[in-house]
Amino acid sequence: MSLFEKHRSVLTNAVDALHKRDFFALYPENPSPKVYGETADADGQQRFKSHLGKKFEELLQEPGDRWVGEEESPYTLESLGISYPAASTETLISRSLNAFDQWRKITADTRAAVLIESLERLKDRFFEIAYATMHTSGQGFMMAFQASGPHAADRALEAIATGYEELQRVPRAVTWDKPMGKFNITLDKQWRAVPKGIGLVVGCSTFPTWNSVPGLYASLITGNTAIVKPHPTAILPMAIFVAELQKVLAEEGLDPHIVQLAPDTLGQQITKELAEHPDVVLIDYTGGSDFGNYLENLKGKAVFTEKTGVNSVILDSMENPDEVAQNLAFSVLLYSGQMCTAPQNFFVPEAGIKTPGGTLSFAEFAEKFTGAIESLVNNPKAAPHVLGAIQNQRTSDRLSETAKLPGRVLLQSKSVENPVFPKARTASPVVLEVAAENREVYSKELFGPVVLLIKTKSTVQSIQLARDLAKQHGAISCGAYVTDDELKETIADQMGLAATPVSFNLTGGIYLNQNAGFSDFHVTGGNPAGNASFTNPEYVVKRFTWVGFREPAKAAAV
Amino acid sequence: MSLFEKHRSVLTNAVDALHKRDFFALYPENPSPKVYGETADADGQQRFKSHLGKKFEELLQEPGDRWVGEEESPYTLESLGISYPAASTETLISRSLNAFDQWRKITADTRAAVLIESLERLKDRFFEIAYATMHTSGQGFMMAFQASGPHAADRALEAIATGYEELQRVPRAVTWDKPMGKFNITLDKQWRAVPKGIGLVVGCSTFPTWNSVPGLYASLITGNTAIVKPHPTAILPMAIFVAELQKVLAEEGLDPHIVQLAPDTLGQQITKELAEHPDVVLIDYTGGSDFGNYLENLKGKAVFTEKTGVNSVILDSMENPDEVAQNLAFSVLLYSGQMCTAPQNFFVPEAGIKTPGGTLSFAEFAEKFTGAIESLVNNPKAAPHVLGAIQNQRTSDRLSETAKLPGRVLLQSKSVENPVFPKARTASPVVLEVAAENREVYSKELFGPVVLLIKTKSTVQSIQLARDLAKQHGAISCGAYVTDDELKETIADQMGLAATPVSFNLTGGIYLNQNAGFSDFHVTGGNPAGNASFTNPEYVVKRFTWVGFREPAKAAAV
Repeated sequence: MSLFEKHRSVLTNAVDALHKRDFFALYPENPSPKVYGETADADGQQRFKSHLGKKFEELLQEPGDRWVGEEESPYTLESLGISYPAASTETLISRSLNAFDQWRKITADTRAAVLIESLERLKDRFFEIAYATMHTSGQGFMMAFQASGPHAADRALEAIATGYEELQRVPRAVTWDKPMGKFNITLDKQWRAVPKGIGLVVGCSTFPTWNSVPGLYASLITGNTAIVKPHPTAILPMAIFVAELQKVLAEEGLDPHIVQLAPDTLGQQITKELAEHPDVVLIDYTGGSDFGNYLENLKGKAVFTEKTGVNSVILDSMENPDEVAQNLAFSVLLYSGQMCTAPQNFFVPEAGIKTPGGTLSFAEFAEKFTGAIESLVNNPKAAPHVLGAIQNQRTSDRLSETAKLPGRVLLQSKSVENPVFPKARTASPVVLEVAAENREVYSKELFGPVVLLIKTKSTVQSIQLARDLAKQHGAISCGAYVTDDELKETIADQMGLAATPVSFNLTGGIYLNQNAGFSDFHVTGGNPAGNASFTNPEYVVKRFTWVGFREPAKAAAV
Repeated sequence: MSLFEKHRSVLTNAVDALHKRDFFALYPENPSPKVYGETADADGQQRFKSHLGKKFEELLQEPGDRWVGEEESPYTLESLGISYPAASTETLISRSLNAFDQWRKITADTRAAVLIESLERLKDRFFEIAYATMHTSGQGFMMAFQASGPHAADRALEAIATGYEELQRVPRAVTWDKPMGKFNITLDKQWRAVPKGIGLVVGCSTFPTWNSVPGLYASLITGNTAIVKPHPTAILPMAIFVAELQKVLAEEGLDPHIVQLAPDTLGQQITKELAEHPDVVLIDYTGGSDFGNYLENLKGKAVFTEKTGVNSVILDSMENPDEVAQNLAFSVLLYSGQMCTAPQNFFVPEAGIKTPGGTLSFAEFAEKFTGAIESLVNNPKAAPHVLGAIQNQRTSDRLSETAKLPGRVLLQSKSVENPVFPKARTASPVVLEVAAENREVYSKELFGPVVLLIKTKSTVQSIQLARDLAKQHGAISCGAYVTDDELKETIADQMGLAATPVSFNLTGGIYLNQNAGFSDFHVTGGNPAGNASFTNPEYVVKRFTWVGFREPAKAAAV
């Protein structure tokens, strides 16, 4: 059985799921022993530990000219001591160009099969990747497992399926037969999906695999080669992905340099050099807006970005304020607000929030919300796992600046003890009340666990502010609590114009921060928070070019 | 029967044709009385004449603040004397924004129906549009009829079908049901294809409708409003399209300002003002590269361009050199080389061209080719119709400069008498022999009937030059004459990397300049000749954003 036959049904199901958009996941998100095996967790942790203090020698790419690495665990504040082979930009590019001809000429079927096989192999390393993600990003274990393992793999599969489907959109060959009256003009036509060249994937420190693999697999399925440039502080998770990809490539007789790891250091980053190289024609990027804008403005490249935004929650009316407060408290604690989907600005009308038990005043809601946050922060069984750790010291430093903003502090941020990692860099959310007039305070992303409660004149003003912020500064998520159908439609319509998805009336175990593969588009691409979307057709079609070839049909020439 | 029901089968057939890519055309290209009626030609000519010297008062948009118009016939060198209502940029934008809410909120079905209805109405005006095109662009009658009428309408239908299909890619609503073990999380999800806003369509003087309607209909089907800014010297053909669109809109109770005409004058062009306006978020453009590059670099807009390129013909080996020479002679005469697909650089190896009758030396091929051109130029029954007229005096002026280029003139350009229009601005092709070393001569588009014969060391060098020119300077078409299959594959592969389609071994009544709707992609979007392609998925998906909305399912909440 060919590798393609082995994975054909996975591919078919994934393409089908793209259209249905009902729940679909190939990789179980539940890290229980029943699903992944009794020893999976311990084995994974052991494998993670075996990397510490060593050279990462699993890659099949030719050795570089030096070894680099400066990852540090946000949980222990100690160096991981892992080093990775670094090479010059010219070396990386020339290897990639060499590998390009081989990869672009094999069929989409074979490419899909190779890529899916790599995900199957990675499944056996989800726990190892989880610990690697924890100790680089600072995510709690559950998020690290789910986001960097099964969810990332499903997002990669989604990109493969979207790309694969696009590659089938135009027939490989047809006979074109045009009646001209007394005779026909008959041409044999062919079309080829020509990949663009080398794709650069620039990773971020908070979601090292989840944000990187869609672009990586999208570039690869469409026949491009790839260079993965992880964030210098979060290399290991992607190093494992690249290593598994290279192993499958080599086993299939293909050049492992079709995908390469390009590690660098904070002091000497190579992203610009790579990005500006004329042979790099695709760039996938997650990170700050300044660098993202610089990349988007590079000439002659297709650039896919997820940058920063300002996410709003519009509070108008609700059935159960306690459930809402609990749901939102979890949303703001989750990974200490370091998710790009974390809500920051909570708009509450000065007349209060309508509930079945009467109107909840601004102050009453504020009390309920901060109470729910405090209660979760003070729950030692939950808080350390939900909060995780702060990825880097700069975020902590900025957090202490936040309390100086013009506004009233309703809840102070504090360190939260982690029983397993006493040195962990932690912070609970700070909650500030900010006047609607102080627009400069809430018109930017305050990265980390920062909650702003903003009193507006009315829900109409709340909607207007949320929409305008999204249009001008970007937004990746939006929450809305509203019981009136007409108002709900207004919110959907207006936030839609700002290209911002809205989660309405969430309570219980689903949070506005979460986006599911094969169903929710992550980032829409339509506002300044990013120009790309996981995974819409635009995300893949810009990675190749349809080129046609034609010739008088042989039969007709007789 | 609703308008959608009336046009449903046309739409279904058009979507189907997109996938099959066999010959498909809804509108007959044959202007014979049998097809269009005995009086169609005379009536159309009469309708065209009735516009001359008058205000064009058919538009349903509110009157502007002045009337402008300076079209002049390349056949008579006389002013058409037609004036069109001009309005300020702010007026145009504010009307367009007003109309946007209405247009974006109606269904894709209704939008498709309105747009197809407009094409059906335009069918009755194809002859009028043909004469309008002749006397603005200088095209010969047959090309003017086909390109501006049926072919343009088919390209518009292709854009409608491509857009319509993309709008169905994601379901409007689903129930998302995620098993969580002991319970399910069930969400009602909705997705909307949110249009981006106002689309500006910037026309060119040589193909006033054919190059403009794909972008116009692509923006409209995806829910955007449109402002059509035709070239100041070729307004009438698009004025008729816009008028018919506005009439259908008004009949359907919609705001006619969903599409507006924005005429201007050569001395006071409003394109930059419109393009830079923050509410203009989509731009379609055909024209010179300098202005195209300026537009592409505007921030925060999706820009679709067709700019200039350098088209090559690679001559290696052929079955019948006489047929090839005749085919290529027709290609270079057609509309006096003013097609963006016209070939310019003919690469012939110094060892000559292999034929069944032995090798044809460079000189022998040159003689055969120039002979075929001369013979066609000197055929009074064919030449005036094939050549048409030179659109503007600057092209004629540049043509006389061409003879001064470093190279040997093999054939001089001359005026060709047009029996119907004695004052017609005409020019037959100039043919120069240029050394392969004089790369600066042939590395740019020499607009008009200019043919360069370039002697290369070998076909390998010919391919390399054609590929590199396409990559660096753009190319929209490429011809190749080659009998060896391996070499043919090399040409397809290498020109594919330069995103340039190749027509192999064309002889008889099909020419490398021609691109058929629903089959050939016009411009690939993958080289500097333009970033857009009629009509690939990228051409429509960049005009709207998928935005999702979700809420706990009502049933599950019980």
